Amino acid sequence: MTQISTLGEFGLIRRLTEDIEIKNAETRKGVGDDCAILKFEEGYEQLVTTDLLMEGVHFDLTYIPLKHLGYKSAMVNFSDVYAMGGQPKQITVSLALGKRFTIEDMDEFYAGLRLACDAHGVDIVGGDTTSSLTGLAISITCIGIVEEGQAILRSGAKDTDIICVSGNLGAAYMGLQLLEREKRVYYAQLDDARRLEGTAREDALRELETAQPDFSGHEYLLERQMKPEARRDIIERLRQAGIRPTAMMDISDGLSSELMHICRQSNTGCRVYEERIPLDYQTAAMAEELNMNVTTCALNGGEDYELLFTIPIADHEKIADVEDVKIIGHITKPELGLALITRDGAEFELKAQGWNPLA
Amino acid sequence: MTQISTLGEFGLIRRLTEDIEIKNAETRKGVGDDCAILKFEEGYEQLVTTDLLMEGVHFDLTYIPLKHLGYKSAMVNFSDVYAMGGQPKQITVSLALGKRFTIEDMDEFYAGLRLACDAHGVDIVGGDTTSSLTGLAISITCIGIVEEGQAILRSGAKDTDIICVSGNLGAAYMGLQLLEREKRVYYAQLDDARRLEGTAREDALRELETAQPDFSGHEYLLERQMKPEARRDIIERLRQAGIRPTAMMDISDGLSSELMHICRQSNTGCRVYEERIPLDYQTAAMAEELNMNVTTCALNGGEDYELLFTIPIADHEKIADVEDVKIIGHITKPELGLALITRDGAEFELKAQGWNPLA
Repeated sequence: MTQISTLGEFGLIRRLTEDIEIKNAETRKGVGDDCAILKFEEGYEQLVTTDLLMEGVHFDLTYIPLKHLGYKSAMVNFSDVYAMGGQPKQITVSLALGKRFTIEDMDEFYAGLRLACDAHGVDIVGGDTTSSLTGLAISITCIGIVEEGQAILRSGAKDTDIICVSGNLGAAYMGLQLLEREKRVYYAQLDDARRLEGTAREDALRELETAQPDFSGHEYLLERQMKPEARRDIIERLRQAGIRPTAMMDISDGLSSELMHICRQSNTGCRVYEERIPLDYQTAAMAEELNMNVTTCALNGGEDYELLFTIPIADHEKIADVEDVKIIGHITKPELGLALITRDGAEFELKAQGWNPLA
Repeated sequence: MTQISTLGEFGLIRRLTEDIEIKNAETRKGVGDDCAILKFEEGYEQLVTTDLLMEGVHFDLTYIPLKHLGYKSAMVNFSDVYAMGGQPKQITVSLALGKRFTIEDMDEFYAGLRLACDAHGVDIVGGDTTSSLTGLAISITCIGIVEEGQAILRSGAKDTDIICVSGNLGAAYMGLQLLEREKRVYYAQLDDARRLEGTAREDALRELETAQPDFSGHEYLLERQMKPEARRDIIERLRQAGIRPTAMMDISDGLSSELMHICRQSNTGCRVYEERIPLDYQTAAMAEELNMNVTTCALNGGEDYELLFTIPIADHEKIADVEDVKIIGHITKPELGLALITRDGAEFELKAQGWNPLA
């Protein structure tokens, strides 16, 4: 392990970025000057989104490896660009590092970052590397393009539009619950071991050092939490099917919260059917194991990075043929409010975060 | 004082951004969706720069008011765009806040931010507001424009070019020294007061509470540290004078460090004359008071946000008429290295940070 101070700020930046190959003709100059220089084709608008991730708030390094963290940090920004119907093109990456991080740690983080960028054709064009008195802070800004006038806002949903989501919901949240449970188990075992004496103590501690939690049967949940995928494929399928959503956003804070954004900004209400909310089998099984209500998890869990969008009712048949998209309800007049219809036909008002009629 | 939790993330963002007026036609959509939407005129390239500022590393809230911090955070990014010969147009602003921050604190920060943006015609188009387990983290990304092919890189300096700097150097660093000295004095007085007993203790503590350090005669140094100004005026004057720098960057880490960047990226050497380095009277007086070498402060101090640039020797007469710009030396062949010629004619090799032959 090598201390970052042996390289210095500029040395570290060079190490992490010097072999980056620029993939887009729009990137005229990447890392290495006061600014990056970009030049976009005619007929496009530029999209800009940014995220700031703080250790202990957004991620816990006791269970997410730095390579996954790099991958996820990039992916959540790409997801915002796809949620406008756009294509991500460039990112800048700023990191503030505590003293405990080594050069090898940063290599890992960048390996994940670059994997995500390569998969989505995105250039790393700049950033800032600095120190932190405490934990790791990660700030990523993503620039994308969209054909002029074609960006899909949150505000375009209309009465009678169909509400759709891609993939399934709640799995990333269940993955987080699982990781946190294993962390608690580990620390409890560590406490027990430390209470022993002599060779029994040494044996128990040694055993713990190499112990790996058994996540078998839950792999999908972990992958959804640690390696989310921005849904470029859905954007492409919608285009191929000739469907242009009237409103769209990505699900980062939970379905309830995002439905509220779309309805507020579009000045509409909505009706969503519990039985239509797509769930993976592992999500349902894990919720039962943890004695949690799976619908609550799907509505409020967050970090799914699936797409939530509305389409004209006339596209009803077209959407039926689009793989991995489910209809979950429809848009209503604003005076009807935001309604969730449960499996037994009862109606509840959707509330972000706080909503929990079934728990 | 009002806790931020009473508003929540979305409420806070609305409060801080809802009355922002968009100033640039290039900003088609600002805060409020997954991404901002920008559309630039033909004939321009886009510039992107980003900075991550961490409490305790880049700023100390015991002496910088939040309004100044907001102003400075924006200004240092504008400075990077001017250093490419460009014009800043949009920023995104991400903040991670510890629990001790109130809504009024954020109002102050945004007041400073908006003052800077208004002065430079820049739109706030997005960002992220989140929590931090510890201190304040500020991440700003700035997007600017430059006429196509006209960006001024660090790599264009040529043998015989003249080296120029705007304004004067070292004052911001002296301002920081002054603030840190007053902070030490304050804590020493606080320790003394706490050692007293009874009413003497109470009196001493009460007196300290309202005590204000006397900064008279040092106002310029404090302003340079707490309210730096990005040098748009210099860019405009150079244009009016018909001078196009061959290389340029802003001085954020200190003259030595920036000269090394230009010489390394241009593959040149340089000769810089100590007696030519522009200093303010207050900087020199403060250095003497603190028993520091003023040239060392000017070379390595940082945070000046002045412009360092090179111009063809043919522009020698033109530059003489440009207000607030000084010639400090010239570019040489790379094999001559980076030389500082002292007042007594001795020659030293310039070293970033470490250089200190005169101390």
